[in-house]
Amino acid sequence: MINNVLIIGCGLIGSSILRACSKKKAAKNIFVKEKSISNIKKLKKIRSNFKVVDNLRNIVPKMDLIVISSHMSQYKQIIDSINIHLNKKTILTDVSSTKKHILKMSKKELKKGVAWISSHPISGSEVSGPEYGDANLFNGKWCILIKDKRTNENKLKILSKFWKRLGSKIVIMDAKKHDIIFSLTSHLPHLIAYNLIQTATDFEKSKKYNLLNFSAGGLRDFSRIAASNEIMWRDIFFSNSENISKAIDLFIKNLKSFKQIIKSKKNKMIIKKLKEAKKVRKKIIKLKHDINRPDFGRN
Amino acid sequence: MINNVLIIGCGLIGSSILRACSKKKAAKNIFVKEKSISNIKKLKKIRSNFKVVDNLRNIVPKMDLIVISSHMSQYKQIIDSINIHLNKKTILTDVSSTKKHILKMSKKELKKGVAWISSHPISGSEVSGPEYGDANLFNGKWCILIKDKRTNENKLKILSKFWKRLGSKIVIMDAKKHDIIFSLTSHLPHLIAYNLIQTATDFEKSKKYNLLNFSAGGLRDFSRIAASNEIMWRDIFFSNSENISKAIDLFIKNLKSFKQIIKSKKNKMIIKKLKEAKKVRKKIIKLKHDINRPDFGRN
Repeated sequence: MINNVLIIGCGLIGSSILRACSKKKAAKNIFVKEKSISNIKKLKKIRSNFKVVDNLRNIVPKMDLIVISSHMSQYKQIIDSINIHLNKKTILTDVSSTKKHILKMSKKELKKGVAWISSHPISGSEVSGPEYGDANLFNGKWCILIKDKRTNENKLKILSKFWKRLGSKIVIMDAKKHDIIFSLTSHLPHLIAYNLIQTATDFEKSKKYNLLNFSAGGLRDFSRIAASNEIMWRDIFFSNSENISKAIDLFIKNLKSFKQIIKSKKNKMIIKKLKEAKKVRKKIIKLKHDINRPDFGRN
Repeated sequence: MINNVLIIGCGLIGSSILRACSKKKAAKNIFVKEKSISNIKKLKKIRSNFKVVDNLRNIVPKMDLIVISSHMSQYKQIIDSINIHLNKKTILTDVSSTKKHILKMSKKELKKGVAWISSHPISGSEVSGPEYGDANLFNGKWCILIKDKRTNENKLKILSKFWKRLGSKIVIMDAKKHDIIFSLTSHLPHLIAYNLIQTATDFEKSKKYNLLNFSAGGLRDFSRIAASNEIMWRDIFFSNSENISKAIDLFIKNLKSFKQIIKSKKNKMIIKKLKEAKKVRKKIIKLKHDINRPDFGRN
């Protein structure tokens, strides 16, 4: 069990860490720093054992682990506010969805000798805010820990143990590989969902057709994904723009070829294409990332 | 109540019509024609009151309503097999997702004087087969009926009453408008989902990264949509290729502009874009096409 943990930024993920930490006894003393007054009010309704702190000066030096779970665009400001108080024994981590950018910034800004080992728990939803947090959010889900040449093995072990205690399965990779993988599995899908909703809206405006009335045939599911927090996704899109741009290029290339196939009615090619996608679905079910229950819409 | 109804092709939609017809007493006598032996076996497990028929010659002339719910690419063959037996009092309908193509074909192939009024119940799932059918599938869902100059008002009324009896809400429009609307709300989203899965697969092959392991961050949801029946979707993509191609062009145009925004980190523009998508989500919730419950993945 970790002695003292500080969670900075306590929305969906932060409050889930808080709840899991408390429920699963992953830390003895839990401190929370949250700047939003409305979030602090919501946090007070959580029955876990923790303390909301305001002044970090006296808290930070005593921490064994600090988890930054605010929006990425606030990281620099957070580092500035805790940097001089940081103890070299403290493990610093974050839960951001892109890594290269964060590591570069941390190397530049962080006091020498302080270890920042970045984490990415693969869990979340289209909602945000501490009221949606869940002590079981990480159960059986991947948490990626970022390792490079400078990573302290001992601290990596401690952090890994912490996430396992919260319910996560651990996988370790470098920042570059992480950002490439997630540009395809998460960032591109979200961008595509946003783009699809925008395309439908543009079209609706120009044609004066009430498209949304008939969204149940597919559009609906994309609209859920596209309802995610805009600050979080701006930060992700901006910080991983290089990989995402490459993914967009590949996507457009495939889309143009798809268009040609349907225009020229190439039967064998399209059947092959559509069947391949089904195989991927089977793999995803086998990996238990989704259940094999048909979805007829949610009632 | 309709006296005699024949359902030709009894998969997910056909068997749902069958079940709803029986449960909600929408027809007195229900006949089913199904060519797949394995589907016939599955149909026998359904406890509704219906008769599976093999020879259509004696059945067709007596029908008040014939519902074709097979794959679109089989429609012509089905018309050929029933055409000479068709009675002019019979209402012919289908449940296909594209309409212009079907109406053109029916005008050309169908015996003069026989009314084909096309239906499109907006319901379904990524699964297919009679075992997934549900008597309540159409409850509260839109069913679009296609009307043109030649449509017999009386027969349209009877068909409309039939679908209402099954639980549907009715909206009437012409084939052209239907095909444009659904190219955006259904066909493009499905094509995009297929294309996204293919892009991830292509990438996985070239990079040897195990992307699917990390599909929970977005890719997973698209894989479900892309697991839909390949024959049905080939038929849809081919028969509505003109509208879908235009939708693809608009989508690519928007995607390129999205890429520029993230590459040049245009803050105001991206926040506006992402917030707009959220508004659409709110409208969809308000229209009750989805529930306002966050999705953390299905367990």
